[in-house]
Amino acid sequence: MAKLCGRSTYRMERPPVVLSFAAVGGSKESQGPLADRFDYLSQDDLFGADSWEKAETKMQRLALKTAMNKGGLKKGDLNVLFAGDLLNQCTGSSYGLREFMIPFLGVYGACSTMSESLLMASVFVDSGLAKRAGAITSSHFCSAERQYRFPLEYGSVRPPTAQWTATASGAVILGETGPFPRVEVRHVCAGVIEDPGITDANNMGAAMAPAAACVLKRYFQESATAPSDYDHIFTGDLGEVGSKLLYELLQRDHIDISDRHQDCGLILFDQQRQDVHAGGSGCGCSASVLCCHILPEMLAGRYKDVILAATGALLSPTMVQQGDTIPGISHLVHLHFAEKEGD
Amino acid sequence: MAKLCGRSTYRMERPPVVLSFAAVGGSKESQGPLADRFDYLSQDDLFGADSWEKAETKMQRLALKTAMNKGGLKKGDLNVLFAGDLLNQCTGSSYGLREFMIPFLGVYGACSTMSESLLMASVFVDSGLAKRAGAITSSHFCSAERQYRFPLEYGSVRPPTAQWTATASGAVILGETGPFPRVEVRHVCAGVIEDPGITDANNMGAAMAPAAACVLKRYFQESATAPSDYDHIFTGDLGEVGSKLLYELLQRDHIDISDRHQDCGLILFDQQRQDVHAGGSGCGCSASVLCCHILPEMLAGRYKDVILAATGALLSPTMVQQGDTIPGISHLVHLHFAEKEGD
Repeated sequence: MAKLCGRSTYRMERPPVVLSFAAVGGSKESQGPLADRFDYLSQDDLFGADSWEKAETKMQRLALKTAMNKGGLKKGDLNVLFAGDLLNQCTGSSYGLREFMIPFLGVYGACSTMSESLLMASVFVDSGLAKRAGAITSSHFCSAERQYRFPLEYGSVRPPTAQWTATASGAVILGETGPFPRVEVRHVCAGVIEDPGITDANNMGAAMAPAAACVLKRYFQESATAPSDYDHIFTGDLGEVGSKLLYELLQRDHIDISDRHQDCGLILFDQQRQDVHAGGSGCGCSASVLCCHILPEMLAGRYKDVILAATGALLSPTMVQQGDTIPGISHLVHLHFAEKEGD
Repeated sequence: MAKLCGRSTYRMERPPVVLSFAAVGGSKESQGPLADRFDYLSQDDLFGADSWEKAETKMQRLALKTAMNKGGLKKGDLNVLFAGDLLNQCTGSSYGLREFMIPFLGVYGACSTMSESLLMASVFVDSGLAKRAGAITSSHFCSAERQYRFPLEYGSVRPPTAQWTATASGAVILGETGPFPRVEVRHVCAGVIEDPGITDANNMGAAMAPAAACVLKRYFQESATAPSDYDHIFTGDLGEVGSKLLYELLQRDHIDISDRHQDCGLILFDQQRQDVHAGGSGCGCSASVLCCHILPEMLAGRYKDVILAATGALLSPTMVQQGDTIPGISHLVHLHFAEKEGD
């Protein structure tokens, strides 16, 4: 049984094991530095569908199917799915995963959804409530732009702080046990909503940085660990602007993560060459980087302990139009590479 | 530690206790049959705010604050909140609960959100991951109508199958232990997405009935219980149309719940007098009926064992406009009234 440390850091007693994972991406992702690591890349951002929203549901379906196939798992092997996405009513998940007929618990954490889903899947597996649980999310540049900012046809000019929503999906399946070498979830930490008062939907990094700083600080304290205990600390999609802000905020508490921090939004794309301005973003950004970079690197033995703190801007265009701000949130997962029993 | 029975029924080993709860409602709710049971009713559906969306955030804040006050609890006493609502980006929750600074895990299950949140809060408390956890949700007639159907100003005529979204919020706080007599969560069961192919956003009852039938049938099987083991079986907001359909679907499997079934959507309003057509609906419907009717009746010793199966239509207006259907989901919670230790 997991143990509560402090307010909301949970130490797994029977650490859930990553059984399988898959990443799916679109055309821009296929030109990025991680292109050769994706399980499936489509040059057609519609994925053969007739709308961006339907394309996104297809991505999630494909990501989960691929993860299940890679792990040799059937629908009946999974007790529960945790999934959500950026589309209104989490359409990518509820429409994308309906055909699986697997018990489904919908999650909403904006771009923090991958770590929120993983957190919940870990808790269910560790507690014995699920033998196997899935965590899935996605985002699509075209469906997100028209929902959150402007329709693409409008040709809006993107400011330098703007980020590029990844057209990608990631799926991870956790289980009670699995063969070594393996990646395990050792800790999870649920974040609080932090609202720094940002009102610009083109400056999401700044809206999310305080939430990331808050969850990291609290996690180090409650788990009695320090940045030096981790090979890498990944944030979701703070991009360039948000990452700098994160360092500044943590330095106020004398925490320095700059020598081991990487932002998924700055890994997925080549910032200069691909014209993504401040970096990548979207639920699918951290989810796909987890599945096509972080987990493979860990399984290759190159990282032993990794923090993934996906970050979400709980942006409501309606509220922003009414003069309100953009609250942020970040949830954290600590992954550990175990080469053998007791490692 | 909870025990997994079958696919996704969890039997609590240390049943979480309902420590406190509160219901908040608007003007129509104040004219309904449950009016004198609400903790707070506002004749002003704007709740003093300048938009329907902001009014909804105020309702959630008020519901949680009232529940905390009634239970003598401070912010620091709660380890985690599970909340969501019908607004895009779950605005009611993320904007409404940001000031509490309590670790927050966002949930999306449309109108099934109350039982989904309660399910997760129960799992976290039972597993020892939270000493106390909150489950909160809301809906607002005016914000929901303009988001899902038509702006009120349009004066659209409502067909007989249409339901009336409740302007209400409910909050429940669960804890590891509490004084007798008390209500405990004994079982929870996560539902699957069922899509009966409905495309009419004014016929949500029909879209949700198969999901309710599915979760009830599976729960009875996995928990080895029958309808006769429960004093009452409440569904969320199937309304008149959906309830009839539910009986028909269950009768195919020789399950008869009609003598002990009530639908929250048919309790909150007086169908004839209040002109709500097929009944009430919305996340706030089952949440407020739970908090101002079901739990008080249980604590008064009138119901011993109760099932709450809130039902959600995972309706995406965008997908329906693109010719797609409305998938449904339902999650189930079994509440038990314990008069004394070992009861």
